[in-house]
Amino acid sequence: MNVHGKPYRTIWISPQDSRVVQIIDQRVLPYQFVILDLTTVDDVAHAIKDMTVRGAGLIGATAGYGMYIAALHAPRHSRDAFLEALRADGEKLKITRPTAVNLAWAVERQLAAIATGSDVEDMIDTALRTANEIADEDAEFCRRIGEHGLALIEDISRRKPGEPVNILTHCNAGWLAFVDYGSATAPIYAAHNQGIDVHVWVDETRPRNQGARLTAWELGQHGVPHTVIADNAGGHLMQHGLVDLVIVGSDRTTYTGDVANKIGTYLKALAARDNHIPFYAALPSSTIDWQMRDGVAEIPIEERDAAEVSQIAGLHNGEIFTVQLTPEDSAAANYGFDVTPARLVTGIITERGICEASETGVLSLYPEKKSAP
Amino acid sequence: MNVHGKPYRTIWISPQDSRVVQIIDQRVLPYQFVILDLTTVDDVAHAIKDMTVRGAGLIGATAGYGMYIAALHAPRHSRDAFLEALRADGEKLKITRPTAVNLAWAVERQLAAIATGSDVEDMIDTALRTANEIADEDAEFCRRIGEHGLALIEDISRRKPGEPVNILTHCNAGWLAFVDYGSATAPIYAAHNQGIDVHVWVDETRPRNQGARLTAWELGQHGVPHTVIADNAGGHLMQHGLVDLVIVGSDRTTYTGDVANKIGTYLKALAARDNHIPFYAALPSSTIDWQMRDGVAEIPIEERDAAEVSQIAGLHNGEIFTVQLTPEDSAAANYGFDVTPARLVTGIITERGICEASETGVLSLYPEKKSAP
Repeated sequence: MNVHGKPYRTIWISPQDSRVVQIIDQRVLPYQFVILDLTTVDDVAHAIKDMTVRGAGLIGATAGYGMYIAALHAPRHSRDAFLEALRADGEKLKITRPTAVNLAWAVERQLAAIATGSDVEDMIDTALRTANEIADEDAEFCRRIGEHGLALIEDISRRKPGEPVNILTHCNAGWLAFVDYGSATAPIYAAHNQGIDVHVWVDETRPRNQGARLTAWELGQHGVPHTVIADNAGGHLMQHGLVDLVIVGSDRTTYTGDVANKIGTYLKALAARDNHIPFYAALPSSTIDWQMRDGVAEIPIEERDAAEVSQIAGLHNGEIFTVQLTPEDSAAANYGFDVTPARLVTGIITERGICEASETGVLSLYPEKKSAP
Repeated sequence: MNVHGKPYRTIWISPQDSRVVQIIDQRVLPYQFVILDLTTVDDVAHAIKDMTVRGAGLIGATAGYGMYIAALHAPRHSRDAFLEALRADGEKLKITRPTAVNLAWAVERQLAAIATGSDVEDMIDTALRTANEIADEDAEFCRRIGEHGLALIEDISRRKPGEPVNILTHCNAGWLAFVDYGSATAPIYAAHNQGIDVHVWVDETRPRNQGARLTAWELGQHGVPHTVIADNAGGHLMQHGLVDLVIVGSDRTTYTGDVANKIGTYLKALAARDNHIPFYAALPSSTIDWQMRDGVAEIPIEERDAAEVSQIAGLHNGEIFTVQLTPEDSAAANYGFDVTPARLVTGIITERGICEASETGVLSLYPEKKSAP
């Protein structure tokens, strides 16, 4: 999507030097727009570990490009030594975010692809081609999610001509979390690009404020009208007819339609149901867990550092400061995600289309998975 | 309640000088514990206007003491001039927070009481006595709310021996918002003081963070175990059996049981219902609006400064800094309150007892109001 009027992905090969991968430093958004060069596997590992890049799709793509960088620097005197070095670098990348499913998947895909190369040069070419494929597929899946979700927005827009379609989203399931378009934001960008009048309520998404920092920034850069709100505000907006549609992303979705997403999503789903507002989760099928039946009981919820609740970073006189919000002696707890039961989810938007949030619905789009559970 | 081990109210006559009223500066809590002297009507007006004191009960009590200070400084050469000056000072106080019902009520009560005095000295004595009465009544009503609510906590405690009773609260309906005890916190303090093992989940309560700043501080000072959480976390905690009871305060309650309270309360009520957890609003009956039937449709919701969403204050190296959280070009919206419909409220705890959140329930406690609507 656009930044300062120019189209960007979240990761790309430098146009100046094909041995350099470039990313946007998401740690300093929205305060600074900084492009970083990744030239070594250590650079890549650090970028994933310290959340310079984050989001399922982008982490996978970064690991893919990381394996290309690994290939550029692996010893060339023997095929075995080359592949051995790649495997070691792959392990190094995988441990940076152990729970990120796409990370391990991208590393394994690269290792399998590279091993088919005829010689070292061919293996390096294969690594670059595969990295680009992983990134392109991620972008293409998000583009299709946007196309399918667009129909929902068009439908609402037709029913209220001359008025904006108000969409509420939580956290950042935006293009910054993927290679392009995003998942929850893809239908919004598609609608905006078609000239449909959309307005987005952006939950700030405490404690890490991915909504206030990242979603607001990317929507603003692309020119999509939006308003940041406290996470507490969504229920009131829905009670008063100010929300037409809720679209969120997902970190993990059971094949029965339970949606794990950033903490607080469940509360918005409850308010949507109470006010008869459609609530959709948008996600590439790589997010679906084909083994898990009961999301609330089975999906492990990460407890993160309490300092993310007790402190917050922001800009003061042009510098980023961290300030303490709570009394020093007060404990704080920080649950990263919650699970929205399928009964509260109107539908799931995937790269293959929209389905009901149920085993029957999900398997109707992915019939090849029918024997899996 | 206790601060540094010593019992305090939120407002009192200085033990050194009966012409001086003292308050706790709530703007700098929890970072600093500062006691301020109020010696002129302007001091009092500023303290209310800039939220050095806040909360319905405390605003009323402050206005009561403000009228005593006004009486101390009014011209004494004639009864008419004295009362005229008091009326003017009363108007000055009333416009500091025009929507605070208790403020106007306390000013009017003082004017009526003072006018019964036989001479200026008697009128000044009456003003002091009435100010103390207003404060004492506020504390006594909260104490009774605590007594009635205590029964709920005792009941839960009996059903889970050896385990803490986990209570979730939102915003600050604590003793800092009243003269003592608080409304939502009164049952918690009563239980804690009786030796019942209670633990409080404190919603930080964005955007003004009254939970993280004030509720956490006052619970901590009084020694009540508590944990600060993001407002997003309550649903997850309730899904996993980590909340036994929700108690919130109220800014305005219809006689039919709809509860207006800090933005986000409605979302917690929805989660409580979805997980079969009792949800109570604790409030002195002065909060009940005897004219209003439909809270969601009729209670006006204040839109506050967007900067409360886009910026936040906290402590950095011992100093209070305000930092910017959102992109500069992003709009923000700030709705102060929401309305929880009576159907989601298990019961209302008042100074007279606990009732169902319905017209029948409320009028059973306040039968003298039966002809009012």
